[in-house]
Amino acid sequence: MKLLRVGPPGEERPAVLDDAGRLRDLRSLIGQEADLDGAFFASGQVVRVANALLRDELPLFTGVGPHDRVGPPIVRPGKIVCIGLNYRDHAEETGADLPAEPIIFMKAPNTVVGPDDEVLIPRGSVKTDWEVELAVVIGATARYLDSHEAALECVAGYAISNDVSEREFQLERGGQWDKGKSCETFNPLGPWLVTADEVPDPQNLGLRLWVNGELRQNGDTKNMIFGVVEVVRYLSQFMVLEPGDLINTGTPAGVALGMPGQPYLRHGDVLELEIDGLGRQCQTVGQA
Amino acid sequence: MKLLRVGPPGEERPAVLDDAGRLRDLRSLIGQEADLDGAFFASGQVVRVANALLRDELPLFTGVGPHDRVGPPIVRPGKIVCIGLNYRDHAEETGADLPAEPIIFMKAPNTVVGPDDEVLIPRGSVKTDWEVELAVVIGATARYLDSHEAALECVAGYAISNDVSEREFQLERGGQWDKGKSCETFNPLGPWLVTADEVPDPQNLGLRLWVNGELRQNGDTKNMIFGVVEVVRYLSQFMVLEPGDLINTGTPAGVALGMPGQPYLRHGDVLELEIDGLGRQCQTVGQA
Repeated sequence: MKLLRVGPPGEERPAVLDDAGRLRDLRSLIGQEADLDGAFFASGQVVRVANALLRDELPLFTGVGPHDRVGPPIVRPGKIVCIGLNYRDHAEETGADLPAEPIIFMKAPNTVVGPDDEVLIPRGSVKTDWEVELAVVIGATARYLDSHEAALECVAGYAISNDVSEREFQLERGGQWDKGKSCETFNPLGPWLVTADEVPDPQNLGLRLWVNGELRQNGDTKNMIFGVVEVVRYLSQFMVLEPGDLINTGTPAGVALGMPGQPYLRHGDVLELEIDGLGRQCQTVGQA
Repeated sequence: MKLLRVGPPGEERPAVLDDAGRLRDLRSLIGQEADLDGAFFASGQVVRVANALLRDELPLFTGVGPHDRVGPPIVRPGKIVCIGLNYRDHAEETGADLPAEPIIFMKAPNTVVGPDDEVLIPRGSVKTDWEVELAVVIGATARYLDSHEAALECVAGYAISNDVSEREFQLERGGQWDKGKSCETFNPLGPWLVTADEVPDPQNLGLRLWVNGELRQNGDTKNMIFGVVEVVRYLSQFMVLEPGDLINTGTPAGVALGMPGQPYLRHGDVLELEIDGLGRQCQTVGQA
């Protein structure tokens, strides 16, 4: 299933796409205040929605037009955990050694915006960069998992993430990467949360990103150093992952940092992102 | 005022201490579902509580005994931002250069526990360490602040934080510090949130930490490299701080990492923490 949230920022309503590509309303089934949050994923609602969709019991989503905003497909996550240098080609372009075990950093949860919302260059920034990533949404509590099978059972689904990064803040301003990862609007997410059952092999997905129509990243999740289930298993040794948490699993080669001349983003640039089966994002770059 | 939350984990109720040291119930004033969260701080409820307390309008907190658990004084924060190496003596004991600007890292928000809850040594850990810190709770949205005065207006209050850290995970397992900062139970907080009006000078507070009765940290916030208002102003250039967010402002010298023989925590150890005017914590160390 493709779950999504439609409406103005802060007023999104949850929906699901039916086979004909129409939006179906979820609140008649899951409750008028319910949303695509940790409680939704933890309580078996995904199966309930799937059954209702099969039986054609979900009303059409009303009150929206074809150009209405799509929000992020989950409510603000409890945390965003990111894996650094997780594609061989990206590690090489940044001049880094291949990591022996996953590199973990974090992004502030209030960076999440819709897939087509504006991305803002922070004040004082001259090195704002893009990163198309496979995002994993956690569906069940993950704590000291001992197998990849157990890890897979904790995955609710997948989405596209743009792990927007300010390279000067991240790498040249002292200390830890988090400083360049948490600026306002730095995590476009969506358009959909595609449930795990519809992504039989998360290590076989093409990822692409264009800047002003030029293809900049063209990778494949088969080139991840640590795959999705290993990332989830590994993270669960260091923290408790909870339903609704978000993991950005790393980016392939082709970011501005690794390109000749380092063509960082400028006001007015247009970003497009795509992952096989997970839809497409399009962001215009503004100035904070 | 000293705001706090009392009750079993997940069922805490908000309260305030009166002049006689008795607990007064807040829900009759702020609503039966209300709690000490971002909405509370953002909506001027602190002033309302202060006025009700002055007028003796708050009922005594019922249904709790003298040995009931105190929870963290705020609900789970939207994010926890930490400042690294922010005391001269701690930077020296770790062998690091003094930072030219604040070092930022993050801690998973689900690490927050009550001030006297058990701290768990993670599985596989041999280097679990302590860090007494002055915690700042944000009371208003902070975005690109341009002065220390504006920063101070965004501070709701202060509390004690134990920024528990696993040094092998943090420093020897590849990459970023976050890996050793986000384990389960790694952020005891409280007992109280002391509102900013009762802490006229946050740069003049003694901080102490004992392990099994031996004084290990004995610092003063006057030795911070970057003081509270500079930390808040600085952070607001890199991320949007929101009401209910938590900032751990760094630890003074005396952690196990910097001591001869590096006496890291063991199952059964007892930690006590104190900051002038902010109360006292006491944690027993268990095993995850």
